[in-house]
Amino acid sequence: MGIDELIINSIRFLSVDAIEKANSGHPGMPLGTAHIGYLLFDKILRYNPENPKWVNRDRFVLSNGHGSMLLYSLLYLYGFDVSLEDIKSFRQLDSKTPGHPEAHVTRGVEATTGPLGQGIANAVGMAIEQKHLSSICNKMEEPILDYKMFAMVSDGDLMEGISYEAGALAGHLKLDNLFIIWDNNRITIDGETSLAWSEDVLKRFEAFGFRTEHIEDGYNLELLEKTIRELLKDQSKPVFLSVRTHIGYKSLKQDSSSSHGSPLGKDAVAKLREDLNWPYEPFHIPSEVLEYTRRKVKEGKNLEGEWYGRLLKYKEHHKDVYDILTKNINIEEAITNMPRFKEDMATRQASGKVLNAIYNYIPTLFGGSADLHESNNTYIHNEGDFSSTNYYGKNMHFGIREHAMGAIANGIAYGGITTPYVATFLIFSDYLRPSIRIAAMSKLHVIYIFTHDSIGVGEDGPTHQPVEQIPSLRLIPNLWVLRPADANETAVCWEMALRRKDGPVALILSRQKLKTLDRDVYAPANMVKYGAYTLYKDENPEYVIIASGSEVGLAIGLKDKLRQDDKGASVVSAPCLEIFDKQDEVYKNRVIPMNAKHIVIEAAKDGLWYKYVNKDALIIAMDDFGKSGKGDDVMKHFGFDVDSIYSKVKQRWS
Amino acid sequence: MGIDELIINSIRFLSVDAIEKANSGHPGMPLGTAHIGYLLFDKILRYNPENPKWVNRDRFVLSNGHGSMLLYSLLYLYGFDVSLEDIKSFRQLDSKTPGHPEAHVTRGVEATTGPLGQGIANAVGMAIEQKHLSSICNKMEEPILDYKMFAMVSDGDLMEGISYEAGALAGHLKLDNLFIIWDNNRITIDGETSLAWSEDVLKRFEAFGFRTEHIEDGYNLELLEKTIRELLKDQSKPVFLSVRTHIGYKSLKQDSSSSHGSPLGKDAVAKLREDLNWPYEPFHIPSEVLEYTRRKVKEGKNLEGEWYGRLLKYKEHHKDVYDILTKNINIEEAITNMPRFKEDMATRQASGKVLNAIYNYIPTLFGGSADLHESNNTYIHNEGDFSSTNYYGKNMHFGIREHAMGAIANGIAYGGITTPYVATFLIFSDYLRPSIRIAAMSKLHVIYIFTHDSIGVGEDGPTHQPVEQIPSLRLIPNLWVLRPADANETAVCWEMALRRKDGPVALILSRQKLKTLDRDVYAPANMVKYGAYTLYKDENPEYVIIASGSEVGLAIGLKDKLRQDDKGASVVSAPCLEIFDKQDEVYKNRVIPMNAKHIVIEAAKDGLWYKYVNKDALIIAMDDFGKSGKGDDVMKHFGFDVDSIYSKVKQRWS
Repeated sequence: MGIDELIINSIRFLSVDAIEKANSGHPGMPLGTAHIGYLLFDKILRYNPENPKWVNRDRFVLSNGHGSMLLYSLLYLYGFDVSLEDIKSFRQLDSKTPGHPEAHVTRGVEATTGPLGQGIANAVGMAIEQKHLSSICNKMEEPILDYKMFAMVSDGDLMEGISYEAGALAGHLKLDNLFIIWDNNRITIDGETSLAWSEDVLKRFEAFGFRTEHIEDGYNLELLEKTIRELLKDQSKPVFLSVRTHIGYKSLKQDSSSSHGSPLGKDAVAKLREDLNWPYEPFHIPSEVLEYTRRKVKEGKNLEGEWYGRLLKYKEHHKDVYDILTKNINIEEAITNMPRFKEDMATRQASGKVLNAIYNYIPTLFGGSADLHESNNTYIHNEGDFSSTNYYGKNMHFGIREHAMGAIANGIAYGGITTPYVATFLIFSDYLRPSIRIAAMSKLHVIYIFTHDSIGVGEDGPTHQPVEQIPSLRLIPNLWVLRPADANETAVCWEMALRRKDGPVALILSRQKLKTLDRDVYAPANMVKYGAYTLYKDENPEYVIIASGSEVGLAIGLKDKLRQDDKGASVVSAPCLEIFDKQDEVYKNRVIPMNAKHIVIEAAKDGLWYKYVNKDALIIAMDDFGKSGKGDDVMKHFGFDVDSIYSKVKQRWS
Repeated sequence: MGIDELIINSIRFLSVDAIEKANSGHPGMPLGTAHIGYLLFDKILRYNPENPKWVNRDRFVLSNGHGSMLLYSLLYLYGFDVSLEDIKSFRQLDSKTPGHPEAHVTRGVEATTGPLGQGIANAVGMAIEQKHLSSICNKMEEPILDYKMFAMVSDGDLMEGISYEAGALAGHLKLDNLFIIWDNNRITIDGETSLAWSEDVLKRFEAFGFRTEHIEDGYNLELLEKTIRELLKDQSKPVFLSVRTHIGYKSLKQDSSSSHGSPLGKDAVAKLREDLNWPYEPFHIPSEVLEYTRRKVKEGKNLEGEWYGRLLKYKEHHKDVYDILTKNINIEEAITNMPRFKEDMATRQASGKVLNAIYNYIPTLFGGSADLHESNNTYIHNEGDFSSTNYYGKNMHFGIREHAMGAIANGIAYGGITTPYVATFLIFSDYLRPSIRIAAMSKLHVIYIFTHDSIGVGEDGPTHQPVEQIPSLRLIPNLWVLRPADANETAVCWEMALRRKDGPVALILSRQKLKTLDRDVYAPANMVKYGAYTLYKDENPEYVIIASGSEVGLAIGLKDKLRQDDKGASVVSAPCLEIFDKQDEVYKNRVIPMNAKHIVIEAAKDGLWYKYVNKDALIIAMDDFGKSGKGDDVMKHFGFDVDSIYSKVKQRWS
């Protein structure tokens, strides 16, 4: 057995044995693609096992994340921070080898995958970031950034809509740094792909603008390597390489969906050992394998060392590039230069002004909108569009592809250098929810700009009016949902969004114009940093009126009206419940004292507010979908006007 | 001006004037496609204006729903239940002409559209239903069902991932009853489509298996009509017809994105009147137009009358077909024949047994899974697969296309005959959330089967473990979220799902085996119909323990443990909060008396529970994402075991 076959078999048996030990997992995929993994990690990818975050490494994204053991086996063999013990703990609590790859758990895992289609869009995001960052950083003769993105994708990945969205954008942008390999095994969980799929996949990717290639003789290592090298040599477009594989290759369950999601079983594993001439005990790797594969540790160190030499030259001549690539990005100047507002405006408008004021101070801020630049106020006016002829462009046009936009943002954020912001109407946050979830789970610094945040949207009607979206987003762990009440709160929310590093932030912004509060009368907007704060307080307030976003105006109106009855009130602006939750009890009780009468006003589905208030609180919220009509009419119709709320208050505490 | 031009101009000006009057709306699309709308409604579509629900009508879905005025204009001109007054009330509160088409509001609107991409998948769903229903119903020489689906789609629709998913499935299933027309105007909100899109769209649809055609001379009526007729004549595949159009056609804003989403403005409208030689006041339609278009009322009546004759012959020979097509479906026998369970099993397994026991009694129950038939327990074992060679097949393979599956279900449900059920893992409910929302808004009878409902999923880890999904679904108005505690509750939940007619139902089912409760000891499973009920009650219970689904077992365990301390408790199974909310206060207080100590156990994000319990309640819930590990280990890790909950109870009320 040659060294290549030895390594490939090592991958196969590490995978199969770990799954057998866990009595859980997906052996079919690693058996089918071990040889491709070997080729990539051994001969194609550039990386440094001891610093898997080296900026100029090639990226490998396993979009079919259920094949995690393929990746863990490769990380172990090639000297990353995954040990044999880790492999033996596959799928056990708190191990480094969870069921699906989690980027925040395992060094060397580039992206959290498993929900199908996400990984391919992540890789497109990484490719976009590479293009943009390169256009900023490659200032000397020798480029400082020239890495490539490789993604392994399954039939399932390619059926998901997000993979089309991402593919169409990658083709459009001519991302020649993207190399997709299709694990074309023609089997999904229900059986043969022909049950549900007869698309000409290569033709699809050609329609997108990819260079495509198919290898029918998918286990011919020489042919595979040659083809990959040739495609890389004159790669002028993104590449889509189809490799005919066999799920559960060489096992009794080859080409059967039964090898997809369950251990092969003792007998089948024994038979596989026999057939592949693998006399070793489970988890035993022949020493010549590790001797050979671990050469990558030294090689990687040298590669990065050499690159670091280049980086030092950059430091000398282009300190800015050095700072970016060493993640030494100072955002304080941006924050100092944020505008302070006096005139009334929609919070989306304030957001746009903030963005235009700060972008210049943060070269690593990059993003755009899903075809709503003007509505989302995300356009950076003095800068060009990101395009295949101008990767330096600051304005990304994602097209009407919200889901891919979300996963592309994740791909950008995984690098840890660029902070992506992505925008659409709040109602369409539903379209990218699966990507938001992964951003939150993987602690990615992504900023979502969600405008048109309530029934206040008006005429476009219920299909465009968010009702359940704000509380639904609040339910996603580790996501900050920030809904500022006016222009100056918006600026502070932007500051918070920029400062956060360990998770995503959703800015929830109004379509309609809002009063910009006079901060000589009301508490400073900076108090937003507490999540919720007392904006105004009468002496001995009988009522505490809590609101967020556009409804803070109603809360103030109600307070004024109660004053006419000689009733005192305090008004609480609550832009972020997640942060308010983290305050101590003393603060929370000061803001929402339990011995007061509580009123909550938020033009969104209620439900989450009961936690914060008394049992007899009056909660003015949305209980149903909205309606098409003038924004004010709709607001009034659903009881969001001061008079109607006032009469409900009188009724409640009569 | 010939009658065709008169009608087309009538559509144009009705649209433009209504938008002008509302000072809100999207004139570009109706101006660009008025002539296509005219062709379809005047010469191609079969319908009866006075009974827009006639079963054998052709369907027209406006996927680019922002062009709603095109549709309203057509409905008015061709004699549907939309008046000139309705047109004048465009986008006003409670009008029949909301900003985007809403199927439950306006007769003649086939689908609620606006969120892009949904409509095209709805049309695919309608086409699938037509195929299936026809295979059941067309028993005599003359078919009783032979209608076709037409969809108008925009650039934006075609960029959305869901449109690819639906297209790939339509091509695979060879839906020759589907005719898609692309309003190929090359403009989206941000500007030219070339900003973000350079896909060869025709090639894409060819890759899917469509017959495609492009008309560059897109305003050549004769050519258009001839092409459509020819494509219809020998339609053997789904058709994708690209028509080169111009947004804002003939107006000052032609080919500009500025005509997309705002009124043209007074001057531009005046200029348009001049250029199109339209001397009439706003909303004035020349009498010869209505005389001509309204012929369709009589024609439609005749068409349906003729068809009804056929139906009566069917009644004579095939009463079953008559019953189906007159929506006279009796589900009582199905409910009588539901299994009663004794042995322990996962609720997903019980669901599968129920489905297999009842399907035979309900010929209009139809559905499947997104490649998880075995896991979701949705396979009907004695029946075949739905495929291009067997439209009679009961088992639909949606492929790994959750979003399209959701919108296809909506398309099926719009017909009001077939009740679709669609299935995936609960975690992937996020992928189809935008479609669930529209089902709920449009009051569609769709049944979702969401299995693998908590961290109990185990080894697959946090990417596959729902945490926020259950409460997030509960936030969608008009959606019932049913999470049964055992096999027999599952059967009752299925009954409720079948009986519901005015909205969708989500069944939330466990992966893991659950104890089947002995109903001689516990309250009858039928009580599930109250949403929440007292399963068990000690005399004078000090504690009320509320749980749903798999956590009811923990609640019972806790109750037993408290009994050892001589503490009485009641156990509440709460499978459906939406229904519990509708009970009267007396019932609610009996189930959750406020003078008790409250404990809630649910392995999902908390937040929504505070509404139901005392301020000092102990809520055992998930606060973070799950972890990969053995199901029991993970449950325990997050505190979902009796001992750990018991000690928290002791601590809380020490």
